[in-house]
Amino acid sequence: MNMFHILLTIFVLVTYSAHAAVQDFCVADLKVPESPAGYSCKPPTNVTVDDFVSSSLNFAANTSNIINAAVTPAFAAQLPGVNGLGISIARLDLAPGGVIPMHTHPAGSELLLVTQGVIKAGFISSANKVYIKTLKKGDIMVFPQGLLHFQLNAGGVPAVAFASFSSASPGLQITDFALFANDFPSSLVEKTTFLDNATVRKLKAVLRGTG
Amino acid sequence: MNMFHILLTIFVLVTYSAHAAVQDFCVADLKVPESPAGYSCKPPTNVTVDDFVSSSLNFAANTSNIINAAVTPAFAAQLPGVNGLGISIARLDLAPGGVIPMHTHPAGSELLLVTQGVIKAGFISSANKVYIKTLKKGDIMVFPQGLLHFQLNAGGVPAVAFASFSSASPGLQITDFALFANDFPSSLVEKTTFLDNATVRKLKAVLRGTG
Amino acid sequence: MNMFHILLTIFVLVTYSAHAAVQDFCVADLKVPESPAGYSCKPPTNVTVDDFVSSSLNFAANTSNIINAAVTPAFAAQLPGVNGLGISIARLDLAPGGVIPMHTHPAGSELLLVTQGVIKAGFISSANKVYIKTLKKGDIMVFPQGLLHFQLNAGGVPAVAFASFSSASPGLQITDFALFANDFPSSLVEKTTFLDNATVRKLKAVLRGTG
Amino acid sequence: MNMFHILLTIFVLVTYSAHAAVQDFCVADLKVPESPAGYSCKPPTNVTVDDFVSSSLNFAANTSNIINAAVTPAFAAQLPGVNGLGISIARLDLAPGGVIPMHTHPAGSELLLVTQGVIKAGFISSANKVYIKTLKKGDIMVFPQGLLHFQLNAGGVPAVAFASFSSASPGLQITDFALFANDFPSSLVEKTTFLDNATVRKLKAVLRGTG
Amino acid sequence: MNMFHILLTIFVLVTYSAHAAVQDFCVADLKVPESPAGYSCKPPTNVTVDDFVSSSLNFAANTSNIINAAVTPAFAAQLPGVNGLGISIARLDLAPGGVIPMHTHPAGSELLLVTQGVIKAGFISSANKVYIKTLKKGDIMVFPQGLLHFQLNAGGVPAVAFASFSSASPGLQITDFALFANDFPSSLVEKTTFLDNATVRKLKAVLRGTG
Amino acid sequence: MNMFHILLTIFVLVTYSAHAAVQDFCVADLKVPESPAGYSCKPPTNVTVDDFVSSSLNFAANTSNIINAAVTPAFAAQLPGVNGLGISIARLDLAPGGVIPMHTHPAGSELLLVTQGVIKAGFISSANKVYIKTLKKGDIMVFPQGLLHFQLNAGGVPAVAFASFSSASPGLQITDFALFANDFPSSLVEKTTFLDNATVRKLKAVLRGTG
Repeated sequence: MNMFHILLTIFVLVTYSAHAAVQDFCVADLKVPESPAGYSCKPPTNVTVDDFVSSSLNFAANTSNIINAAVTPAFAAQLPGVNGLGISIARLDLAPGGVIPMHTHPAGSELLLVTQGVIKAGFISSANKVYIKTLKKGDIMVFPQGLLHFQLNAGGVPAVAFASFSSASPGLQITDFALFANDFPSSLVEKTTFLDNATVRKLKAVLRGTG
Repeated sequence: MNMFHILLTIFVLVTYSAHAAVQDFCVADLKVPESPAGYSCKPPTNVTVDDFVSSSLNFAANTSNIINAAVTPAFAAQLPGVNGLGISIARLDLAPGGVIPMHTHPAGSELLLVTQGVIKAGFISSANKVYIKTLKKGDIMVFPQGLLHFQLNAGGVPAVAFASFSSASPGLQITDFALFANDFPSSLVEKTTFLDNATVRKLKAVLRGTG
Repeated sequence: MNMFHILLTIFVLVTYSAHAAVQDFCVADLKVPESPAGYSCKPPTNVTVDDFVSSSLNFAANTSNIINAAVTPAFAAQLPGVNGLGISIARLDLAPGGVIPMHTHPAGSELLLVTQGVIKAGFISSANKVYIKTLKKGDIMVFPQGLLHFQLNAGGVPAVAFASFSSASPGLQITDFALFANDFPSSLVEKTTFLDNATVRKLKAVLRGTG
Repeated sequence: MNMFHILLTIFVLVTYSAHAAVQDFCVADLKVPESPAGYSCKPPTNVTVDDFVSSSLNFAANTSNIINAAVTPAFAAQLPGVNGLGISIARLDLAPGGVIPMHTHPAGSELLLVTQGVIKAGFISSANKVYIKTLKKGDIMVFPQGLLHFQLNAGGVPAVAFASFSSASPGLQITDFALFANDFPSSLVEKTTFLDNATVRKLKAVLRGTG
Repeated sequence: MNMFHILLTIFVLVTYSAHAAVQDFCVADLKVPESPAGYSCKPPTNVTVDDFVSSSLNFAANTSNIINAAVTPAFAAQLPGVNGLGISIARLDLAPGGVIPMHTHPAGSELLLVTQGVIKAGFISSANKVYIKTLKKGDIMVFPQGLLHFQLNAGGVPAVAFASFSSASPGLQITDFALFANDFPSSLVEKTTFLDNATVRKLKAVLRGTG
Repeated sequence: MNMFHILLTIFVLVTYSAHAAVQDFCVADLKVPESPAGYSCKPPTNVTVDDFVSSSLNFAANTSNIINAAVTPAFAAQLPGVNGLGISIARLDLAPGGVIPMHTHPAGSELLLVTQGVIKAGFISSANKVYIKTLKKGDIMVFPQGLLHFQLNAGGVPAVAFASFSSASPGLQITDFALFANDFPSSLVEKTTFLDNATVRKLKAVLRGTG
């Protein structure tokens, strides 16, 4: 029963494993190439508690824009500690009249928590059935992976919500931005959406698209 | 070295495992509840080669419709042998002028193989970048999971393609159908897509939506 | 270009798939056996928006107990819509002096969001390194899967936080409850924790354990 | 600080979750249909420690057979506690001259531990490279998922080994049994293996195949 | 409602994420080390549509060889866009009399689509049951992961098929090549396959094996 | 039927794939950054059979320490061939009176095989139910992922066991070491475990903790 031995036998195991990287976590190192499973890991010895913590969602983002709303993500690219852990979060600010337009997260399901105001939210299934609910402070709603969904301010005051995701990098594809905020040729937009030329041109103008 | 013993020892192992269901495969039984991992399995003793084979994609589907195109799936619901195996397929028929409108597969990536005609296809990334290519017979193109994409006939003759998926039930959400072919209230469609009321009403009329 | 045909061809696909269950989601049916992947799915036709929504986290739970704290989960067993989606959430209420004692979630990583008060939180890695941070309203912190962690009220007022998980059923193992709140024989507790008999007996008394 | 409250608040959580099945484990219930993720779960209240324990690998199996060897599995079908946990084990007994013939495990990697005697083992990669080693008591060797491999007694005394697998149902396909111990038509065996008719007939006779 | 603001708020999110790599896809970079999840990703800014497209399967491969057949893969190593997406494809050309000999894919299930001619295909389960079918143009057949299977030309004319896989790198292990086309010692081949020395020597000669 | 052609057509496929790394396996290269899926892969051309084999578990480890026991791991950091394969192993040596104290493996389930002596082992579920069994030579017991468990020598002679894991890097968190063998402030240990100051100080002294 020698205290020194435990340090020479058990600790050897634990310490050795630690040196070789224990895969308890894989804090993202954005400077080296990533893999299909996420970003490469920082050396464990360089990891600090601040890799797992963020105050970036403390304050309301600027909502003086066309949608009167803003999304502030804490995905693996912003919060490196979530890399590889299958979880992340984003803050939603919706001024009165604000809306997070129809969008999908290609790589994750979303769980929304309203912390201020009133939000009307909904998603549409592959069977084209619509699921809509008006949510007040403390309410939660889940949006299954990859399905179109939206959130809009349904009260007269600013609303705030936090969206958790089942992926460290869930992605975000806003339908209008995908269609109109790039050089996607108008004729192809029209053929693949049934929208008429005037509508496509108007939205491309609003979202600074070309083509 | 007795032939009979091998049947009593090795065969016992193999046969016993087989009785208890070996999980080589899990042919879908559509009559019992499914799990998050897919349909429940038919008893192995009821499985035949026909659970793994289909001729349902042999012939062109009827394309006399508004999109001049048709999709014939062989997902787990149609081809029970793919259940749980992470693979499925669908046939695309595109008459001249035909289009598979902008859509996503919430649960799988797609690999398209053109077998007849000329098809222009494309997808849009989360960064709103557009990737478009004109494909001829024998060409292949991959569409990453959950991203908006489309296919349209770019030749003057009927085109045929086969789309493989990285899921036995990849899902299919056609954007226009999700927005206009149901009772999704027009005012919400307008607020979440920036489309004007006239456009929403017109498309709802075309796709028999209400609200 | 006949509106009726689209309903006979494209809609056939979508509707048919819907009948056979599209696996967009798998709302938990708690009345039938579950699988390693989670609960069995309710028939899609019985699913409503209320399967995806909950108001159960709206109000503070009673914290008049030994830990001056409470955990209110919205896991798959409470919020059936998250089943199979790899996400869930719980509300933490910590009265002044309250603590969520040292615990693990065997099946998921946790992302904590403080919405009221001040919380000191921390986790310990396999290499026995401690990561501690004091969090205020709006701060987030991630706790990697399976590692020991804790939260305690570090302000003089009630604190509230919401913990998201990378699993619909992350589990919760509170170390003290695992050791002292059951019939685990005291002699085995002592041998496997190095705690002395008096300590084990005292904690078993507090937590109503036997043995 | 009332002992009774902790039982009414914290215990409520834990107990409630337990009733709804906590997914700590999913002990196989072989009597109901399985899913792609494994067998359905026994109700947690029916689970006992004996679901997780087995003495079935204690003794040498009968090796008086053509291969002078035997495999005794403790897969999910035999040891229900491993269901869904991604682990299982089997005992290998090899009399002098015994061999586990060339085989694959379609659904898992194998880690072999020799506990008695001397075993020569090897596997072949997709690049057709052969990796062979002679193992003595205490040696371990890993065989990557799905690759052809074998073990044979390389000493003059009985050998014993335990093979762990990265799946609760790794499967076992012995090449000779797959080719010759069934009604697979000889002409097809010949065409697909380049073996001549005499060889196929001889092996079919040995392994009681027909066709 | 200032157009400039949307570019400063929403676009900031999307653009920033894009710079940090959005994990919509992970186009393979073959020049850096790979991980268990696949190849490392090319920087997103270097990705073009041609990473997702290939014409390499357009034409029949040379089948003037011993099997009168050829396999042309478009796996992640050949089609970098499929890396990490769980899907890939290969073209099979079978001249009259041609055969794809008995083989497995250690890491993926296969879905075969016949596009020309007549092919007899089959697989064998772990329970040694044989599932065989003759397939004509347009027919599909699925081969579960890791199981032995084969395809042979069953018509008098050249046959073509396309095999999709549930992995970007499914692997390919042809049994005869694994046994005879390398330096695997003949005595070990004999002991582990029950083949006699003459047969082993003959096949080693045909496939240029040694030992 | 030209032997040379097969080398020019079929071999081309196999060899080419091999050069580009076939992902049959991913032998760990500890010198480059790891990803969430494990260590990066050694170039396949540098891989030898010794990457898959180890004799490091052949002999009893030194158990002259406070727990009269030792754990010798063969995880991915020690046995690079298991990297990415979801399997690993460790040897347990327990002198008379020895104990592997209460611990968890955050990232894997464990399957214990006793090869010498008598071991009493147990685990505790999230529902705080205790599952204990006394195991003799040849007995096996499974410990579900992330749950607290222990093993102790229950005979008068040295005991040996081998623990297999469902992960190449399952991790190991010994509760006492996590709480007392570091600089975790005593006041926080006390608040989060209900242990009194004297107990915490005593155990910190034993395990060389500070704070």
